Amino acid sequence: MPSLSGIISIITDFGYDDVYVGQMKGVIAQIDPAATVIDLTHGVHPQDIVEGAFLLAGSWRFFPTGTVHVAVVDPGVGSRRKILAAEAGGHFFVAPDNGILELVFEYAERNSFRGSTPIEIVSVENPACRLPDLSVTFHGRDIMAPAAAHLTRGTDLTRLGPTVAGRVRLEIPRATFDSKTGITGEVVFVDHFGNLVTNISRVEIEKRLTSKSAKDIRFEIAEKNGTGLSRTYSDDKPGKLLALIGSMDLLEIAVNQGNAVEILDTGKGEKVRVY
Amino acid sequence: MPSLSGIISIITDFGYDDVYVGQMKGVIAQIDPAATVIDLTHGVHPQDIVEGAFLLAGSWRFFPTGTVHVAVVDPGVGSRRKILAAEAGGHFFVAPDNGILELVFEYAERNSFRGSTPIEIVSVENPACRLPDLSVTFHGRDIMAPAAAHLTRGTDLTRLGPTVAGRVRLEIPRATFDSKTGITGEVVFVDHFGNLVTNISRVEIEKRLTSKSAKDIRFEIAEKNGTGLSRTYSDDKPGKLLALIGSMDLLEIAVNQGNAVEILDTGKGEKVRVY
Amino acid sequence: MPSLSGIISIITDFGYDDVYVGQMKGVIAQIDPAATVIDLTHGVHPQDIVEGAFLLAGSWRFFPTGTVHVAVVDPGVGSRRKILAAEAGGHFFVAPDNGILELVFEYAERNSFRGSTPIEIVSVENPACRLPDLSVTFHGRDIMAPAAAHLTRGTDLTRLGPTVAGRVRLEIPRATFDSKTGITGEVVFVDHFGNLVTNISRVEIEKRLTSKSAKDIRFEIAEKNGTGLSRTYSDDKPGKLLALIGSMDLLEIAVNQGNAVEILDTGKGEKVRVY
Repeated sequence: MPSLSGIISIITDFGYDDVYVGQMKGVIAQIDPAATVIDLTHGVHPQDIVEGAFLLAGSWRFFPTGTVHVAVVDPGVGSRRKILAAEAGGHFFVAPDNGILELVFEYAERNSFRGSTPIEIVSVENPACRLPDLSVTFHGRDIMAPAAAHLTRGTDLTRLGPTVAGRVRLEIPRATFDSKTGITGEVVFVDHFGNLVTNISRVEIEKRLTSKSAKDIRFEIAEKNGTGLSRTYSDDKPGKLLALIGSMDLLEIAVNQGNAVEILDTGKGEKVRVY
Repeated sequence: MPSLSGIISIITDFGYDDVYVGQMKGVIAQIDPAATVIDLTHGVHPQDIVEGAFLLAGSWRFFPTGTVHVAVVDPGVGSRRKILAAEAGGHFFVAPDNGILELVFEYAERNSFRGSTPIEIVSVENPACRLPDLSVTFHGRDIMAPAAAHLTRGTDLTRLGPTVAGRVRLEIPRATFDSKTGITGEVVFVDHFGNLVTNISRVEIEKRLTSKSAKDIRFEIAEKNGTGLSRTYSDDKPGKLLALIGSMDLLEIAVNQGNAVEILDTGKGEKVRVY
Repeated sequence: MPSLSGIISIITDFGYDDVYVGQMKGVIAQIDPAATVIDLTHGVHPQDIVEGAFLLAGSWRFFPTGTVHVAVVDPGVGSRRKILAAEAGGHFFVAPDNGILELVFEYAERNSFRGSTPIEIVSVENPACRLPDLSVTFHGRDIMAPAAAHLTRGTDLTRLGPTVAGRVRLEIPRATFDSKTGITGEVVFVDHFGNLVTNISRVEIEKRLTSKSAKDIRFEIAEKNGTGLSRTYSDDKPGKLLALIGSMDLLEIAVNQGNAVEILDTGKGEKVRVY
């Protein structure tokens, strides 16, 4: 088991206007007063599991080893879907069994970590590790927050519930490659600055477009196109459409000093091609 | 006196774009560096004391005993209204004397808590327990944050100022019961998902509609109606109007996989009837 | 060197919907798990350095001496602009070299602090004090967060990089005085309540309009005008246009129980005159 960092990160689709996240933190403080809680974001679009999966996948490795990441995007709350707790890549994860952890598991499976154990997943069912009065509409507070706090307190993963073998798979949009048309992917989320972040990774580009230098790579989105991978948002002149590898190692389409979402009048799901 | 949790929760109508909450936390850190501050929410609608009262009333019990809850919805800032500090139900509270603590006090009066003392309320007036340079427009930072931090440091409630007997009463909308028409209440806040939360409690329904099973209870809102209390948001088919007991033990009107606020084109203040 | 508070405050233009701030906190926790991070605000308008400068200047002194303030409004990310770390007024600051710290430095230069040393500024260049894999688009996470965490851990400022003499100057709008027309300034930010905060300070008014009592001071904005400096937002009758000294010691234009931004249909940059 990795050593614990005492940190719990939370990503949800709760927004910031409600008391839901605050209540989760209150529950965590009841169970592990020493835990430090960090908001990863609460700005996932309501019930958008795929967006949550990409945001978590691009963020968890910036936290200390042994951090517990709680992901509450849970359209199936109250149905029979399981709550999973997992250890992967030296970190812990607590989330509904709806695929939001899929990209984390894939990464952990592909990469080995010094001293880390293989992925281990349990179904959180131990009544001693959740709130005594369980609501049916808010398992983030009543099951997931307590499970996370029990983990930071040092409770063994396997104490939370029985090991599960299978898990729910999520339809995650993947970049595809064709030797004629190049790499085709799509926008998987947009940020506050209007940058369009795609599912085309730096690794994919380096692997597939080996014969091209950065300045010769072409890109196409929403019937616009351009040439060259920029280094930064401020390459080239203001208003210029840019493609670059962003801070999460994914291809982004941006506009220098502008808002690409507004200028291209597009957003999540828009197809992007690099070739 | 209850033991202290070292936690301060903050609920305000400040939103997230300003530096006001950040300044309050800076002041708290000056007085009690060991305190842990948790944002309950800053999304109360500007100056909406009733909304703040319901959100706090539905949340404080999820925090550890001995937590200090600060509620800053303060349209009367700078006028002669008092700042109250109180102990109730094993927790502490700091807020303007405008009724925002009313539902907390009612709950604490109705329920007894193991080892808790009766409600005790003081007026925060001790100059040693506030910022030396007092602004007239931001008592959240200059009086309430310091009072909370003094409490978590272990300062006795009665050191903050003199005991007060009376307090300002707030006109809080209450659910009413009539044997012919059933329970009539109203929407007191809406959440990020567009769920309409009412002032009709689970307790009220269980007490008044004893002869009915959950599936026979009828509800009416905005000239729409339905039958049956659902267990979860995903009961029944997508798009279906639902009534259910939400995570704060209040009746909510929701739409399965939809936004009830938009679909019913309604919001706070809308009348709701269950019968 | 001032003693350290163990606190890091963060002000950015990242908003709340993205994972950027969460990632910064993860990085800080990796380097200094004991640091306490406080969000000053993430609501600075995108790339608005002047707004960030005023918000930081009005807030840092509410934090404990020895706090590290990180200001990430960074339109030039990835260009050759330096990242500065500084000690001033008994606090520490980390920010791009774009002038966002200018008002802090001016204040620290004008005022002496008990036991504080003069302003000292270094360029953060030590590779040991930043993330090993440096992105070109997110120096807030890869350089500034690590620098701040190294400071709270006790790393000497001068270990972060070489001392710099010059720095980039920012065009900050200043209030001007003319004996005929009085003080002319402008709105530098607006808050959540629609109050218009100007660059005219209490000190400026006290110095320039000495012959006038508060009730005789006149103000003019957007072709409207009024007489008298109010004490609080609730002076005078609802709907009344007010001028008052706000909680950051700057002149604000407000409307009693109303939203001045909406009622005057104006905002940042609007000229304001007091005389």
